[in-house]
Amino acid sequence: MIDLRSDTLTVPTPRMREAMAGAEVGDDVFGEDPAVRALEEETASLLGKEAALYVPSGHMANQLGLFVAARSGEEVWAHEKHHLIGDEQGAATVLSRVLPRLYSGDPWPPDTLLESWAAGAGENDVHRAEPALLWLENTFSGRVLPLAEQERVTAFARAHGMRTHLDGARLWNAAVGLEVPPSRVAQGFDSVSVCFSKGLGAPVGSALAGDAETVRRARRGRKLLGGGMRQAGIVAAGALYALRRHRERLVEDHRHASDLAGRIDGLPGISAEAHTNMVLIGVAEGSGRAHAEAFARHGVRALGSGDRVRMVLRQEIGTEDVADAARAIEKALTDL
Amino acid sequence: MIDLRSDTLTVPTPRMREAMAGAEVGDDVFGEDPAVRALEEETASLLGKEAALYVPSGHMANQLGLFVAARSGEEVWAHEKHHLIGDEQGAATVLSRVLPRLYSGDPWPPDTLLESWAAGAGENDVHRAEPALLWLENTFSGRVLPLAEQERVTAFARAHGMRTHLDGARLWNAAVGLEVPPSRVAQGFDSVSVCFSKGLGAPVGSALAGDAETVRRARRGRKLLGGGMRQAGIVAAGALYALRRHRERLVEDHRHASDLAGRIDGLPGISAEAHTNMVLIGVAEGSGRAHAEAFARHGVRALGSGDRVRMVLRQEIGTEDVADAARAIEKALTDL
Amino acid sequence: MIDLRSDTLTVPTPRMREAMAGAEVGDDVFGEDPAVRALEEETASLLGKEAALYVPSGHMANQLGLFVAARSGEEVWAHEKHHLIGDEQGAATVLSRVLPRLYSGDPWPPDTLLESWAAGAGENDVHRAEPALLWLENTFSGRVLPLAEQERVTAFARAHGMRTHLDGARLWNAAVGLEVPPSRVAQGFDSVSVCFSKGLGAPVGSALAGDAETVRRARRGRKLLGGGMRQAGIVAAGALYALRRHRERLVEDHRHASDLAGRIDGLPGISAEAHTNMVLIGVAEGSGRAHAEAFARHGVRALGSGDRVRMVLRQEIGTEDVADAARAIEKALTDL
Amino acid sequence: MIDLRSDTLTVPTPRMREAMAGAEVGDDVFGEDPAVRALEEETASLLGKEAALYVPSGHMANQLGLFVAARSGEEVWAHEKHHLIGDEQGAATVLSRVLPRLYSGDPWPPDTLLESWAAGAGENDVHRAEPALLWLENTFSGRVLPLAEQERVTAFARAHGMRTHLDGARLWNAAVGLEVPPSRVAQGFDSVSVCFSKGLGAPVGSALAGDAETVRRARRGRKLLGGGMRQAGIVAAGALYALRRHRERLVEDHRHASDLAGRIDGLPGISAEAHTNMVLIGVAEGSGRAHAEAFARHGVRALGSGDRVRMVLRQEIGTEDVADAARAIEKALTDL
Repeated sequence: MIDLRSDTLTVPTPRMREAMAGAEVGDDVFGEDPAVRALEEETASLLGKEAALYVPSGHMANQLGLFVAARSGEEVWAHEKHHLIGDEQGAATVLSRVLPRLYSGDPWPPDTLLESWAAGAGENDVHRAEPALLWLENTFSGRVLPLAEQERVTAFARAHGMRTHLDGARLWNAAVGLEVPPSRVAQGFDSVSVCFSKGLGAPVGSALAGDAETVRRARRGRKLLGGGMRQAGIVAAGALYALRRHRERLVEDHRHASDLAGRIDGLPGISAEAHTNMVLIGVAEGSGRAHAEAFARHGVRALGSGDRVRMVLRQEIGTEDVADAARAIEKALTDL
Repeated sequence: MIDLRSDTLTVPTPRMREAMAGAEVGDDVFGEDPAVRALEEETASLLGKEAALYVPSGHMANQLGLFVAARSGEEVWAHEKHHLIGDEQGAATVLSRVLPRLYSGDPWPPDTLLESWAAGAGENDVHRAEPALLWLENTFSGRVLPLAEQERVTAFARAHGMRTHLDGARLWNAAVGLEVPPSRVAQGFDSVSVCFSKGLGAPVGSALAGDAETVRRARRGRKLLGGGMRQAGIVAAGALYALRRHRERLVEDHRHASDLAGRIDGLPGISAEAHTNMVLIGVAEGSGRAHAEAFARHGVRALGSGDRVRMVLRQEIGTEDVADAARAIEKALTDL
Repeated sequence: MIDLRSDTLTVPTPRMREAMAGAEVGDDVFGEDPAVRALEEETASLLGKEAALYVPSGHMANQLGLFVAARSGEEVWAHEKHHLIGDEQGAATVLSRVLPRLYSGDPWPPDTLLESWAAGAGENDVHRAEPALLWLENTFSGRVLPLAEQERVTAFARAHGMRTHLDGARLWNAAVGLEVPPSRVAQGFDSVSVCFSKGLGAPVGSALAGDAETVRRARRGRKLLGGGMRQAGIVAAGALYALRRHRERLVEDHRHASDLAGRIDGLPGISAEAHTNMVLIGVAEGSGRAHAEAFARHGVRALGSGDRVRMVLRQEIGTEDVADAARAIEKALTDL
Repeated sequence: MIDLRSDTLTVPTPRMREAMAGAEVGDDVFGEDPAVRALEEETASLLGKEAALYVPSGHMANQLGLFVAARSGEEVWAHEKHHLIGDEQGAATVLSRVLPRLYSGDPWPPDTLLESWAAGAGENDVHRAEPALLWLENTFSGRVLPLAEQERVTAFARAHGMRTHLDGARLWNAAVGLEVPPSRVAQGFDSVSVCFSKGLGAPVGSALAGDAETVRRARRGRKLLGGGMRQAGIVAAGALYALRRHRERLVEDHRHASDLAGRIDGLPGISAEAHTNMVLIGVAEGSGRAHAEAFARHGVRALGSGDRVRMVLRQEIGTEDVADAARAIEKALTDL
């Protein structure tokens, strides 16, 4: 079985396991874990921020970015498909009590929309919440958000007194895709989340980076949420290993994605596009799930719903697996 | 330096590191991590509950117990020194919006108090919140709560339609201290938290145990808080090792605590009592911090405030360390 | 100036003022205000519910319906244009921490949508919130929601274990429009809000009606929100007067709305439709505000935005005012 | 029956009813109610603040003071008997998610306590919430808080970057008791609540006063809570009448309280003290309720619990009622 459901399935390599087994650790709640400290410093530096905070999940990193930026009853502007919204059981509502104002379609909001939202938020409309935070994701559903769009939108937010957050769960893929350093992708944001699991392949953990005050407050919020771990250095050592050794190899996942999309695009009833490490397959409306099930019967697991199937490449999937997967998909299509 | 600040300082042993390095893992958010599943099943079984959930910290286990049990605006009855309250930045307020109703003094509330609280919560008092949850800790500041008291209080809560939660961060110490199985300490509670770090010495993690529906809802709450970890089996394997191999050795920590208390009780200006793995040292009001600083200058670290200093024994502290610590304390007292 | 911005502008009549000045009052927080009690009983009876609660605003009545029905992190299904959402500064988020799941277009959700939402909320999806409440408005933007649609949708909700709430701010208009008793419109809902201000013309107040337990809990919630008023009988007497004497006269407002729409529909560049006491005027996209400003320069105030202008009829606006308003609008259109 | 349970029982006088019946009103949610505007301006001026906001209850005024001042998870310092805490179903927890830090005993906190609280809130303690707001009440359980104490405490808060709020539900009584203008009592606070019901005798309403930005944000919060009322001028006119005509007469209630306390102090088994318009009667522990019941059987209603009974004087209670009440109490005591 070739499992392409997600890059979150990536497992630690033998060398990463060695690094973890040998980690020098301490009580991180007391701030005494050397592996965690090293990871936080290196992450901050790579992202061009003053500080970073290690947390158990990307979702927690994002929620802390939100909790620090917005007061109860303030607005967060986001895309309706951002993980902030809908997913994760309304965490933004429960934890931060913010009001999402959502756009759809293109991954970034047009100027006219931003302006109409800003105009409606005047002093005197007692019905409207006050805007606090602009949210972006990069990559977004696998796509790289062009840096020029990103800058236009964050500049607008800054000019209107809003803060900005980047959900960078796959920022490493965006940097590789754009051939720029990670700090370039993170530029202009008050806070940025990144994941060490997913493509980098560490077993546990994510980080929130930003200026020192943002991270100080996020550290308090991490305690509040129960995200403070004791000898976290065990897993932080795996994350540090991933950060140093696995970022550049993401280019292979992207190449495999291109390869796979090229092999299956135009097969009967489907189209396929590669974006970074993902292959997005378009199928007939309502048949996404049935396609995924047919693929699984032929040995390829993927997530399907509506009119699409998503496949994600990762370090365990090699060149031959890609060729095998393409053949399996071709056969499966004759089944449907 | 002999560091007696907390048993959270315990670090993984070489064999525990080996167990972690060799763990069979998967994506636990998909429910596919074998090490996590094994840990959850074994924990539930030891505690006599239907199910258990692995989480990154004891604080998260407790907050999930609360989130599941009480609606916004309902009352939780607790001791003013429980970690639920005051500590952890008011997490109970932010996450669950519950109203604490607190007693002080003895570790358990007298019947008369419970009755007056229950009486005041009648249907018609529009000012009073409705009671939802009774909270206990065992051990509590190192002391074992007698099971008869525990039963009296939980029976009262049940009879009044309240749920019950046990903060069992050091439940393993209570079971060893009482010479009963862990399930006996957990009996009568709707939910129970336990820690694999602290005395057991695993690097990361705690669990919440209860009936299947409680744990199902807590699993959703864990996602909401950002406590879902990917290949968590790496650290879960350490916790499972600790659960199997380190519970019985807690008796040594208790013996070391008794030994240390016996050696220093009655030294000039101090008294000392051992409770499970803790030594509680009484000093002149306001001199707790100064005492801790004096001890540190002689090579023994501890936490001091108000009129007391707390020392906690753990697996890294052996018989000779205890003798050394006692001598250091004796010398330090001549300094003050 | 003929002010058609809203029926919330309705002011108390001399006889209503007399009724208020002579009200027998007491401390309603102690449950001792006879005028409030009479109002609550009569409202409950008219709506066919066990009990009702008098509150300072329709918004509070709605928020209490929500607070009673849903726990933090649960889903409310609603139309994106319901006042629950967007308006009122995200109160649903701050007060009840619920997650809205929204449909758009038609005022009621199609079966296929309801089914897909219900299907996605299965036990095992740790990402999805659990559905708790279905929300409707009747009238909705002035339109009467047909009772058959209302029944289809509430039946679906009940069958899936959800509660139902009707925002009945203008339920009295719906009943008059449908020529049924108010209880018929309220049928099938666990809670219903109604307003005594708006078309009925009382100066202050709304009510939430439902079964006894719902209202008991809402009464507690009213205290929590600060909606308990002392000698509220002064304003409740106005509301009671309105409930008894002003419901039937709403038919005049509806007639005036029809009359006005008939006079102006098809004038250059606009279309007009009457729904209950509202006239909805369609104009060129983006010119709603400019139209409203032009009308105001000719003596008719209205609210305009996007591609429409809304005019609302109320007891102070008579037959001649309608004719005058139509003439003014005609002149104003030549200005644009 | 002479009803001394509370001054909230005060009912509007015939002249106040006339003022209300003749009020010029508009839609206050649109900011168009002249009576409300006049009341807000006059209240702000009397309290020496930039602005004020009319709300349905004193509880809402207080909760808005809190909501504006503190973010979720921050600390409010208050006395354990302040109405902020315990009463009102934990509203502070649900609406503002703040963590109360409470003192007991004297109505104001000693310097040493304030300093220890401030010291513990340092940057680096990840367990402690950050202090945001200091809360006082004046009068407090009927007692006038000396202005020197009030200044000491508010100065401390300001020096530590905290905001300050005064629950002035009976501030008018404090001003009369101290023989100073109301603005003198309100001095030094960022926000102040006052009630027009209670001793002043208006049927409905309270206000929050402060600087313009505080009141702007509170106005938004009032909308959020559902406290915006339409033609609120009806009741605001009563409040304005009370503010102008009933403040000075509070001195009579205070005289009646002194008179009553003087007549009953030292009767068998009881002591009595007058504070502003309240008489606090000390009785044997646990017999407060029985005393209140005995008094009621002889024609005097009061609230009793624990070791005390509280009686409150108000405009309907004249000199002869006081003499009658004293005689009734004397007789009742022979019953017990």
